[in-house]
Formats: sequence, C-alpha cells, structure tokens
Amino acid sequence: MKLLRYGRPGKEKPGLLDQEGRLRDLSSVIPDLGPTELSDKVLRRLAKIDPSTLPLVRGTPRLGVPVAAVGKFIGIGLNYSDHAAEAGMPIPKEPIVFMKATTSLSGANDPVMLPRGSKKSDWEVELGVVIGTMARSVSEKDALAHVAGYCIVNDVSEREYQLERGSQWDKGKGCDTFGPVGPWLVTRDEVPNPQRLELWLELNGERVQSGNTRTMIFSVAKIVSYVSRFMTLMPGDIITTGTPPGVGMGMKPQRFLKRGDEMVLGIDGLGEQRQAVVAYQAG
Amino acid sequence: MKLLRYGRPGKEKPGLLDQEGRLRDLSSVIPDLGPTELSDKVLRRLAKIDPSTLPLVRGTPRLGVPVAAVGKFIGIGLNYSDHAAEAGMPIPKEPIVFMKATTSLSGANDPVMLPRGSKKSDWEVELGVVIGTMARSVSEKDALAHVAGYCIVNDVSEREYQLERGSQWDKGKGCDTFGPVGPWLVTRDEVPNPQRLELWLELNGERVQSGNTRTMIFSVAKIVSYVSRFMTLMPGDIITTGTPPGVGMGMKPQRFLKRGDEMVLGIDGLGEQRQAVVAYQAG
Repeated sequence: MKLLRYGRPGKEKPGLLDQEGRLRDLSSVIPDLGPTELSDKVLRRLAKIDPSTLPLVRGTPRLGVPVAAVGKFIGIGLNYSDHAAEAGMPIPKEPIVFMKATTSLSGANDPVMLPRGSKKSDWEVELGVVIGTMARSVSEKDALAHVAGYCIVNDVSEREYQLERGSQWDKGKGCDTFGPVGPWLVTRDEVPNPQRLELWLELNGERVQSGNTRTMIFSVAKIVSYVSRFMTLMPGDIITTGTPPGVGMGMKPQRFLKRGDEMVLGIDGLGEQRQAVVAYQAG
Repeated sequence: MKLLRYGRPGKEKPGLLDQEGRLRDLSSVIPDLGPTELSDKVLRRLAKIDPSTLPLVRGTPRLGVPVAAVGKFIGIGLNYSDHAAEAGMPIPKEPIVFMKATTSLSGANDPVMLPRGSKKSDWEVELGVVIGTMARSVSEKDALAHVAGYCIVNDVSEREYQLERGSQWDKGKGCDTFGPVGPWLVTRDEVPNPQRLELWLELNGERVQSGNTRTMIFSVAKIVSYVSRFMTLMPGDIITTGTPPGVGMGMKPQRFLKRGDEMVLGIDGLGEQRQAVVAYQAG
C-alpha cells in the first residue's frame, strides 16, 4: 500500500493511492495515520479494503508528512562510502547517528526555506525507514519486521551550521523545512529488498545525485538493529539512512541551494518529491 | 507555581504543589500539562486558582515528566568552562547543540537503567528550560518571555557511546531513562534570575557536583535565542543547558555509574531528584 496524508498543514487526513494512482480518502476508516495505525494489525486491516470502495479525493491537495506524531527523526551519517569520500571524511566503522529536529519535518512537495543568512544549504536524497512496532535492542535478523514501510527523505543540511560551528551536526540538520518526507509511505510488503533501490536527485533539471541502496555501508536491517541498542524505537519514528554521492558540498567548486532552485528527487517504487527553494521568511 | 504530573507512566494526571508542599490535583481544570497548557494565558488562569480549593492527592504517587508530549529534548554541551576543562575539551565559541531522544525522558525519581554492557554511564545535573510559546529566531532580549519555566534535568550520558563510537554525541545521550526531568516545572515568575541558581549532585551521599548557573558560558537567554535561529522552538520543548564540573569522566581515576548507585540532585528552588541505578533489563 501507498499510504499518505493530504490537506493543509496540521489538518491532514489519511488517504491511500489506488492502483490507478488516484488519491482515496481513508478518514472513515482511521482517524489519522499515526503510531497506532502503523501496527501490523492495522496495516493488515487496511490492506483488506478494496480501494475502489473509498471516496476519491478531488483535485490535487497538498501532501503532508505521511506519518503523524513522529516522535524521533533519526539520521545516519556517511552511509555510502563514495559520499564519505566526497565529504572528505573517513568511512565510519559503525553507523554515525544524529537527530533531525521533528520541527524540520515537512511535506514532500512543500517549499524548502533557506535559514536566515544561509550560504551552504545542501541536498541529500535518502531512503527513509518508518518504524511500525517498538524495537528495543532487536537483532539484525528481526529488525525489518519492526519496519512499517519506506519513504523518500530529503535530508536537507546547512553545511556551515553542521560542520563549521562546533562538532555536533544537529544544528545544521534540523532547520525548519529541512525534512521533506513522502510523498507516501510504502508498506514493507511492497519493498521486498530495501538494498536494491535506485535513488536520484535533480537540481534544476540536472541529475546531481544517483546511487543505489546496494552500496550502503550499513544495511537498513543493520541500522535498525544498531540504533535500537542505543534508544528504543517507537512506532512512527523515522530513520533516514544516508545519502549517495553528488551533494553540493562535494562538488568542485562547491555548489549550494539558492532561492528559486528546484529539487526533484526519487527512489524506485517510492515516488518523487519536488521542492522549490525559497528565501527565509520571518514570522 | 510548581506544576507536575503524577501517576503511572503514560497515565499521569496534572497537579500542583501547594504552599505547604502538598500535592493537589489539577485534572478538573486542565486535561494534562502539555504544550497547550504552557501558554501564558493558561498559566495565568492556573495562577488565579486557590490551591486549597483543589483536591488533595493521597499518598506519594510517582511523579512523571512534568510536561506531556515533549517534541524536542535539546542539549547544550560544555556550557560551564570548568566542566569543559575537566572533559579535556576547548571552551566553545558558540553553544554546542545536540539532541536527546524523547524516549529518554523519565520521571525525576524513576530508576536510571544502565544500557546493555554500559561501562561509562555518567551523571550531569543541569538546569532545564521548558518553552512556553513558539520561538523562532527570537532576540536574546525577548528570549525569556518564551520560557514557561524551569526544572531539574539529569543529562545522563554514556561516555563510550558519546565520545568513542563516532563523532556525534546523540548515541550516548538518548538511551532510555537517560533524561529524568522534574520533579516539577517551576513557572518563570518564581525564578527571577535563572543565572543565580546553585546546582549540585550527590552520588551515594557524596557531593560530586556543585556549581552555580552564574558561571554558564552562555546564559539561558542566549541559548534560547541561539537555538531558535536553527530550529523553531515549540511549547513543551525542553532545553537542558549544560553541567557544572564534577562528572565521573572528569575524575582521576574516572568513575562511572554502577548498579545499586544512587544519585540525588537539586537546584535552588526547583526541588530534588533521586534515582536508583539499575542494571539493563530486556523487554
């Protein structure tokens, strides 16, 4: 299933995408698509519904973050060896874990706002993993059973804030609008192998990132298992699993986002995102 | 006011401490003490209530985190120069910002559980700041008006996870039970100067930390203003503002938490916390 949330920010309703790619309303079935609804039990119940029996949604509403009430938004750093090389950093011996502020979450096609005075905002297409059931110190073998599904994440990052203003990255990872997620949550039954997915990002029509989750240093199963040893993962938590090469920081000369840019990014089977880059707006 | 939440984990009710130090039930007035209730408007309304008209709570119930639905749990690193020295790290030029997983939040007197195989779990008494109204890029002058109140935080930290397993600290900061908060939220009108507060921590009856918020490198106002430029602060967000010297990592020889230890910690006017250290428990 491709599950989603549509409507104005803070007023989203749950929905799903039918086989014809049309948006169907799920709000008569579930109140929202949040931690409770990500359990295997509820997902199985939703899977039994014939989408054609659900009301069609008219028009082309905004798509919100496909999961409500995300508790943790966890990032994995330098998880593709060629990206570590372009960032000029050593290949990590174990996963690097950072956190994106949950206030950075935004819809797949919402504008990305440059922070005030930002000169080094950068793009990162990534495979996002949405936790479906609580995971605490789970084995690598059991890890994927705790995953509700997958989605695209653009792990937008301000490199000056991340790397030049102290040792900790979170400052440059959690700015408002720096976490577009979606357009939908694709349940794990539709992603038989999360380590065989092409991912790409285009800046103003030019393909700048392209990679395959096959070249991750640490697999999704490994990451879920690993993180779950340091903190309990809860339904609705999102882990974004690192980016392949092609970010602006790695270019010669370096290249960063500016007002008016457009990012389009996608992952096999998970849809596409499209974001306009806009200037800082106060208030 | 000293606002609190009492009862079993996940079932807490709102309450307040009256002038005689007795617990009064607020659940007939507000449904919980969450982001909505931290606004100046609601706090003013609560301040008008005569506590003696509220039901007394019987017995000595568990105290939960005094704020429900915390969205972000933000930490500031090395904010006391003498602590930076004992940690062997340079005095930061600007605040170091990291994030504690919200799943690490726990009640003021709940046990602190050592992570599986942990050898270097350490204590950190800190002044916690609870945001009351949304703060986005606010000035230092306006910052404290966005604060609902203050509380004690024990920023428990696993030093091996934090410092020896990659560059990012979050791995050692967000373990389950590593964020005792409370016992209560003291509204800001009762804390005329957050930069004149003694804070201390005792391990098994021995005073190991003692300091005063006067020696912070970056003041509470500066921190709130600073962080609000990188991410929007929301009602209910908690910022923990760094620890004075006396942590186990800084001792010679180093000393870390072990099963059976007891931490007691306090801050002027904000009460005390008391935590038993317990071994890892699966499930």
